[in-house]
Amino acid sequence: MLLHSLCALNDGAVNSLEEISALIERRNSEIAFDIKTVPFSRLDNWIIDENGSLKHSSGKFFSVEGIEVEMDYRMPLRWTQPIVNQCEIGYLGIIATELNGVLHFLMQMKVEPGNINHVQVSPTLQATRSNFRQAHHGRKPFYLDYFENASPREIIVDQLQSESGSYFLRKRNRNIVIMVDGGVKVHEDFCWMTAGQVKALMQLNNKVNMEARSVFSLLNPRRLALPFRGAHKLSSFGKSLLLPARTDHSVHSMDNLLSWITGIKARCDLTVRPCPINKMTDWRITEDEIVHRDNKYFKILGIKVSIASREVASWCQPVIKPVQNYLCAFVIKEFHGVPHFIVQAKPECGNYDVVELAPTVQCLTGNDEKSTLNVPFFDYVRNAPPALILHDTLQSEEGGRFYHAQNRYMLVMADESFPTEIPEGYAWMSLRQVYTFLRFTNFVNIEARSLIASLPYTPMNSQT
Amino acid sequence: MLLHSLCALNDGAVNSLEEISALIERRNSEIAFDIKTVPFSRLDNWIIDENGSLKHSSGKFFSVEGIEVEMDYRMPLRWTQPIVNQCEIGYLGIIATELNGVLHFLMQMKVEPGNINHVQVSPTLQATRSNFRQAHHGRKPFYLDYFENASPREIIVDQLQSESGSYFLRKRNRNIVIMVDGGVKVHEDFCWMTAGQVKALMQLNNKVNMEARSVFSLLNPRRLALPFRGAHKLSSFGKSLLLPARTDHSVHSMDNLLSWITGIKARCDLTVRPCPINKMTDWRITEDEIVHRDNKYFKILGIKVSIASREVASWCQPVIKPVQNYLCAFVIKEFHGVPHFIVQAKPECGNYDVVELAPTVQCLTGNDEKSTLNVPFFDYVRNAPPALILHDTLQSEEGGRFYHAQNRYMLVMADESFPTEIPEGYAWMSLRQVYTFLRFTNFVNIEARSLIASLPYTPMNSQT
Repeated sequence: MLLHSLCALNDGAVNSLEEISALIERRNSEIAFDIKTVPFSRLDNWIIDENGSLKHSSGKFFSVEGIEVEMDYRMPLRWTQPIVNQCEIGYLGIIATELNGVLHFLMQMKVEPGNINHVQVSPTLQATRSNFRQAHHGRKPFYLDYFENASPREIIVDQLQSESGSYFLRKRNRNIVIMVDGGVKVHEDFCWMTAGQVKALMQLNNKVNMEARSVFSLLNPRRLALPFRGAHKLSSFGKSLLLPARTDHSVHSMDNLLSWITGIKARCDLTVRPCPINKMTDWRITEDEIVHRDNKYFKILGIKVSIASREVASWCQPVIKPVQNYLCAFVIKEFHGVPHFIVQAKPECGNYDVVELAPTVQCLTGNDEKSTLNVPFFDYVRNAPPALILHDTLQSEEGGRFYHAQNRYMLVMADESFPTEIPEGYAWMSLRQVYTFLRFTNFVNIEARSLIASLPYTPMNSQT
Repeated sequence: MLLHSLCALNDGAVNSLEEISALIERRNSEIAFDIKTVPFSRLDNWIIDENGSLKHSSGKFFSVEGIEVEMDYRMPLRWTQPIVNQCEIGYLGIIATELNGVLHFLMQMKVEPGNINHVQVSPTLQATRSNFRQAHHGRKPFYLDYFENASPREIIVDQLQSESGSYFLRKRNRNIVIMVDGGVKVHEDFCWMTAGQVKALMQLNNKVNMEARSVFSLLNPRRLALPFRGAHKLSSFGKSLLLPARTDHSVHSMDNLLSWITGIKARCDLTVRPCPINKMTDWRITEDEIVHRDNKYFKILGIKVSIASREVASWCQPVIKPVQNYLCAFVIKEFHGVPHFIVQAKPECGNYDVVELAPTVQCLTGNDEKSTLNVPFFDYVRNAPPALILHDTLQSEEGGRFYHAQNRYMLVMADESFPTEIPEGYAWMSLRQVYTFLRFTNFVNIEARSLIASLPYTPMNSQT
């Protein structure tokens, strides 16, 4: 396997970035869709059971259920909330191949009902099991057979990774990248892109969907890109990501980091019990929505969707509509020339294993300023001068479950006076260490993965 | 840290193996204890709730609850069973130190009510959180402070690892080994042993308890024992375990193995729901026991225990009494001079993450010969000639929850004609790969860990 370049923008790329951007815009303008909110009682094929849960009449897809959470981490907390229960594991799959000597990824221009701008760049295959076993009697998803029949030799990434633990109960997807030898038919709405191009689109707001960001976070460029050409084109930060590390200097050893996580999991009590939605004291249920009594966090709404390019033309479903948005940010600092990230061990009620590794800052904003007062590093991130900001975008959450959800994602360099000592529950990790945790499933949360995916290979402030 | 030898039997050891064996025997004969079975209604401090669950009146320790399991792996299965629910994470901790230039471990001669022979060699600290937070108003466990206050520098192993997923619901313990500089007071019933001595005791029946085997499985000798002296004393098999691998030749890459596990987790449906014990159709409840209608698997009994050397003198509790025993065996074969184990991806209802890596054979025997007919490698293992058997012992399961449970553990070399191709759901793994999975929590089950722990450093058929 000869991978000459991962960061090609246009040099050797099948489609230029300008062509791809134009394609996204054109699909956005062409696509015929219609989305309106409807009362729960008029959600076709969805039933409200005796607990107030919203379930599909087939018993498949997903349900919205109530849970009661007891969490004892820094302080004991207890609350109730609705949560999306979707236990089955679906595919987030990308087909890769070498074209013109450059690694290309087959990306889909996919419409999702909740996307703020309708069309976003998505994995080749994005399908729940109900979906690909055709529970909705639609057509079989394109390219499914490639993944179902992939040989071990073709698979270059294959991991179960989580979705947001605040909204989903132990949900995981199979993130998979396969390398095929060519001869892949490109269907309408699909397009070959280089990693550099996808990364470039991630530097813009809402162009690359959560699922694609999740899969791209797992592509460790150091393991893919050797031998590596064109390093002279990279920013020094990009070089430190892509070139083999000259040293193994990490602030902490992997054993120490594993022990740190073990200690937190052992101390953090998290109990999640079913609780009927119609008995949740913290939430109000109306004909149209399930809403927090203080109008915080998020709402559950019902929508009716009609999209021309989807497997089925029209359907109803519940969605999560955020009331508050998140700020997700990594603070990055070099130690011995190796960039390190402040990683947070964060418990969330839907986590598969109590805590996952989260960005330095991951907190709700915008409803109650007091709630961010005691969030470590929040003020540092929000007040960082432009020269220290590597990345600052709005990105969408899963458009199949969230309605118009966009959160702010940032990468911020530490300044000269930034403390080396950080609070308990936070640790400095090199990128190599983050990639090691990524390989072993259920360690790194989707917000952190989204930021890892957005790490640029190429300079951000100038064109080369 | 200078670790000259891990495999010392008597050379440099504080206590000789003969002294240690005599100590175990003496404690066994001295200890005053009394165990009798009692009806559930007479289990002091235990209540039977409206579902028939057995719970401690404090709400702590553990409970015996009913579950309904749906598992779809090779074929769809559905059953009900009682299971032990003990969500809190306890310590299995061992203190290590260097004495006479040899690494020593502080082991406890611990009585557990269910042990078939009462006293077994146990970790320094073995305590659930209810236990060490003194829910039973007894004395604080010895050496707890060492673990509560350990610095990252002192911690050499620190992992959450599972207990048997057929009997315990998502139970995990914090397996931890700390290296201290000396000055440790040796209380009565505690004794310094070398790794070689503990390993030698594991070659005998029922001398080393499940908890100690679990912790010892995590001590990768290659990472501990460098520089390593005395290799000339080792069996060639011992050398291949302890000396740095000359090659990285594994049959499969780690990426392929991770993908193999991901694929099985994605395909295997496992749903576990609460089911009232008194409504389980597969089980009969009497005054004295909860028993399978075909008298298979195991029973739940109540016992009343009085032991002089424990924190409290007398208590009642439910226990699991096996009706059938397990055969657990690894088949081992060298590829390119590197020993490889056939590892099975095995779903069990109480597993934290659907499947864990299990021994080549892990199956119930003795009740129904037909049930083992289609178990891959069962006949090979049972009929292996002595020359191919590296290890064959009876080992006890956790004596605090199981009553007189001993299973057969074997390590068997593949013969000349053993197939390289093995069924789906099985994979060849080098020991280095097994140790990598062990570091990342929840990958390797207790039966496999027990066998890994028993891997001998020294020749088994001759004294050196």
